[in-house]
Amino acid sequence: MKQVAVILSGCGVFDGAEIHESVLTLLAIEQAGVGYQCFAPDKAQMHVVNHLTGDVSEDETRNVLVESARIARGNVKPITECKVSDFDYLIVPGGFGAAKNLCSFAVDGEKSSVDKDVLTVCNDFAKAKKPVAYACIAPAIAASVYGNNVKLTIGSDEDTANALNALGACHVNCEVDEVVVDVENKLVTTPAYMTAQNILQAHASINKMVETVLAMK
Amino acid sequence: MKQVAVILSGCGVFDGAEIHESVLTLLAIEQAGVGYQCFAPDKAQMHVVNHLTGDVSEDETRNVLVESARIARGNVKPITECKVSDFDYLIVPGGFGAAKNLCSFAVDGEKSSVDKDVLTVCNDFAKAKKPVAYACIAPAIAASVYGNNVKLTIGSDEDTANALNALGACHVNCEVDEVVVDVENKLVTTPAYMTAQNILQAHASINKMVETVLAMK
Repeated sequence: MKQVAVILSGCGVFDGAEIHESVLTLLAIEQAGVGYQCFAPDKAQMHVVNHLTGDVSEDETRNVLVESARIARGNVKPITECKVSDFDYLIVPGGFGAAKNLCSFAVDGEKSSVDKDVLTVCNDFAKAKKPVAYACIAPAIAASVYGNNVKLTIGSDEDTANALNALGACHVNCEVDEVVVDVENKLVTTPAYMTAQNILQAHASINKMVETVLAMK
Repeated sequence: MKQVAVILSGCGVFDGAEIHESVLTLLAIEQAGVGYQCFAPDKAQMHVVNHLTGDVSEDETRNVLVESARIARGNVKPITECKVSDFDYLIVPGGFGAAKNLCSFAVDGEKSSVDKDVLTVCNDFAKAKKPVAYACIAPAIAASVYGNNVKLTIGSDEDTANALNALGACHVNCEVDEVVVDVENKLVTTPAYMTAQNILQAHASINKMVETVLAMK
């Protein structure tokens, strides 16, 4: 059975992995008859955000790996244990966690840097020419990893697109139920909740992404 | 558009609402062309569980409503604001949160009691004879609400079934992709992660439950 490494970034759209995107990614992988293992960095989240009010909880800390375990029902491993040779594909769902905990794009924009352990894994997938997919804001990581005018999308937000281009990417506008494919890099990206207005649209976006990347050799 | 009230109980299988069940419930509702509003009790969780280790975090407290907002992307209201007259259906996903925060079944078993605000809403749906659905361990709430040998399922675990029967229910064993229907009470229950081994099975369970309850008048 083919295997996907899925990188989670916490649990909740404002400070972690977007929950709907993550669950729908795991569902689409299983529906394709493919296996997966979730990974996450074992470190403190950049923020803990009260998802009811949107406020940052100044006095609270949570761990990215521990919170990711909520989505993975306990079955998640430290990103340092991800060996690219064990996997056929990499998928990174979105949520602010991708831009706060996996890289610093949410606060540093065009000066974003990628968490070193995440960067190692993403670079290894790139070097191995294995198909990869990034959803929502997670393509900010791909911009740093691939550079060289790599084709990708976060939907159509102009400021975000400009920041990605400044990081070395070539942003392409994309409808929510479509994907942008960089054939040479075997990179699939989709807007998901960067533009989705409801879970149906997020589902269409994630399904298209997972189907497209799993169809790649 | 018909409307469903969805009661969440936190965010994470061991101390809150089961995330996959909750997301798949919202997806199935939208796929049916029906609207929804999430609700949760505004109170402290019974436990905060580290989902990586399974340990209870003794020195940490989290609020059920605030954590439920992670699954609902911020769009969740206090259960006290749920007016049954505004809704056509009630659905309660599972997870230990349903048996720890919505009622006390996880610790009190056959002496379980239901949170008073949750009980008010569930009782109002019962009195109004509106169709309702409870997944996974959430039927423990329905046992207390309906009693009178109400037909329901949590799958096939004998000890759990006996405790539900002691609460006044009539437990019926059920496969993961099936539902048990109590026609008179318009109550639909399904095992979901009480027996599901993967997200595909949980998906089949939740889909069958949502389709069945939304087909009721």
